[in-house]
Amino acid sequence: MRFIEDRIKINVRFSEVDAMGVVWHGNYLKFFEDGRESFGKKTGMSYLDIHKKGYVVPIVKSQLQYKTHISFGDEIEVVSRLIESKAAKIVFYYEVWNLTTNKMSAEGLTEQVFLNNKTRELELYIPGFYKNWMDQANWISG
Amino acid sequence: MRFIEDRIKINVRFSEVDAMGVVWHGNYLKFFEDGRESFGKKTGMSYLDIHKKGYVVPIVKSQLQYKTHISFGDEIEVVSRLIESKAAKIVFYYEVWNLTTNKMSAEGLTEQVFLNNKTRELELYIPGFYKNWMDQANWISG
Amino acid sequence: MRFIEDRIKINVRFSEVDAMGVVWHGNYLKFFEDGRESFGKKTGMSYLDIHKKGYVVPIVKSQLQYKTHISFGDEIEVVSRLIESKAAKIVFYYEVWNLTTNKMSAEGLTEQVFLNNKTRELELYIPGFYKNWMDQANWISG
Amino acid sequence: MRFIEDRIKINVRFSEVDAMGVVWHGNYLKFFEDGRESFGKKTGMSYLDIHKKGYVVPIVKSQLQYKTHISFGDEIEVVSRLIESKAAKIVFYYEVWNLTTNKMSAEGLTEQVFLNNKTRELELYIPGFYKNWMDQANWISG
Repeated sequence: MRFIEDRIKINVRFSEVDAMGVVWHGNYLKFFEDGRESFGKKTGMSYLDIHKKGYVVPIVKSQLQYKTHISFGDEIEVVSRLIESKAAKIVFYYEVWNLTTNKMSAEGLTEQVFLNNKTRELELYIPGFYKNWMDQANWISG
Repeated sequence: MRFIEDRIKINVRFSEVDAMGVVWHGNYLKFFEDGRESFGKKTGMSYLDIHKKGYVVPIVKSQLQYKTHISFGDEIEVVSRLIESKAAKIVFYYEVWNLTTNKMSAEGLTEQVFLNNKTRELELYIPGFYKNWMDQANWISG
Repeated sequence: MRFIEDRIKINVRFSEVDAMGVVWHGNYLKFFEDGRESFGKKTGMSYLDIHKKGYVVPIVKSQLQYKTHISFGDEIEVVSRLIESKAAKIVFYYEVWNLTTNKMSAEGLTEQVFLNNKTRELELYIPGFYKNWMDQANWISG
Repeated sequence: MRFIEDRIKINVRFSEVDAMGVVWHGNYLKFFEDGRESFGKKTGMSYLDIHKKGYVVPIVKSQLQYKTHISFGDEIEVVSRLIESKAAKIVFYYEVWNLTTNKMSAEGLTEQVFLNNKTRELELYIPGFYKNWMDQANWISG
């Protein structure tokens, strides 16, 4: 398995905390999205970069396991790992760390597919622009 | 002053409640939007109806005064009043009632303008389709 | 396997639609929550009912598979099935149906555990109040 | 009039953009909250700092005027100005700047009151801890 990793720190918003005083579970999908965008901006493969190439990449699968909570005021870090895939999909694995308690708060994954932006049809093969990018990317073996 | 009124009941979502155990103040703008859409569906002037006529109607002003809180589990009602306007804008006044406590929770208003959906330019005059609709609407004098 | 099923219809909010013009993937977890609460209100096992018994039931796992999109203006139905479990957890399976296109939009599941509301400690055994409720519930064999 | 100013840069999230391709108007209240929290952390007057002193400070009024849109991918800056007030309230004025287009996107204000965290009763006079803080703060005359 090979992967490329990105890390970003995020401040938890007051509006993201629920009545139990901890981050509402659905908001972790926003943290994953923040992680993907941070990854994309650094590697030239952001949502807008992909859009310019004529594709949109909707999420088709998400999985989350919650381990410890995040309170308002805690600082967090999102680790996003793009996992190399032979299929025409984008697979990310994530860890959300609570830096205040030094515990992992959640881990999860998402899968995205390539749709032609005009026809909205599913691409069965990896688009050329993405294949080229993969060939030149700095993969880490792990 | 003349107006047209709509009322809808809304269930408060768990994710809409903040760490103080009450509805987060920003979510009232969602309730206002629910009110506008309920109004629009009943009167043939919903977001999608307007879009088909070639316009988008972004919010250019919002005002809110909060009076009493809404707890999770409370049932609420949104009263939305379209206020008749001579200018090329859509003005709504709202009241959010907490039906569980029987108290007004908030009141506010929004203003929207008409943009041509293609050029995104501001319409200085009331679009014809909307003028016709206003002429035939059941206004209440208040 | 035995289960109990609930169905609710939901209106999609404008603010729930993203820049692709379809419901943002994270908002499905709100639909699941709406489904759980609808289930809970009808069966006497809502978030607040459980809270009164001295427990909170945070989500520890969520899984989602997205099949077809939901556009703004579409009407949707959430089918929530509580799956009978021998362990001290609450397992729901969900389907989100787009009633406008008559297609399944997503399916998924969530797992919740019981925490003592005061100590926030994990309950390893099914709490008595919940066991009694399970014994009397109208399970369907499927 | 005297004020204290804070500035923060914010990355717009994909989930914050609506079907018109621009930031949904309600999300500006999140940007204001980000601004207040940034202000509070730098000056020792954050939500949690105030909570430790025995108070909560709910929003009782919000006003927003929208001028130009923010697209996904744009970088923004929130300018938050605490306005000196003789009454027992916290008044902030805000500007949201789109750094990508170099235009002001919105301006607005919020008002907060002090509630005793235990009784939830309104404080009619400025709490001592806050008065002390005001006396020592670096106000700018403007």
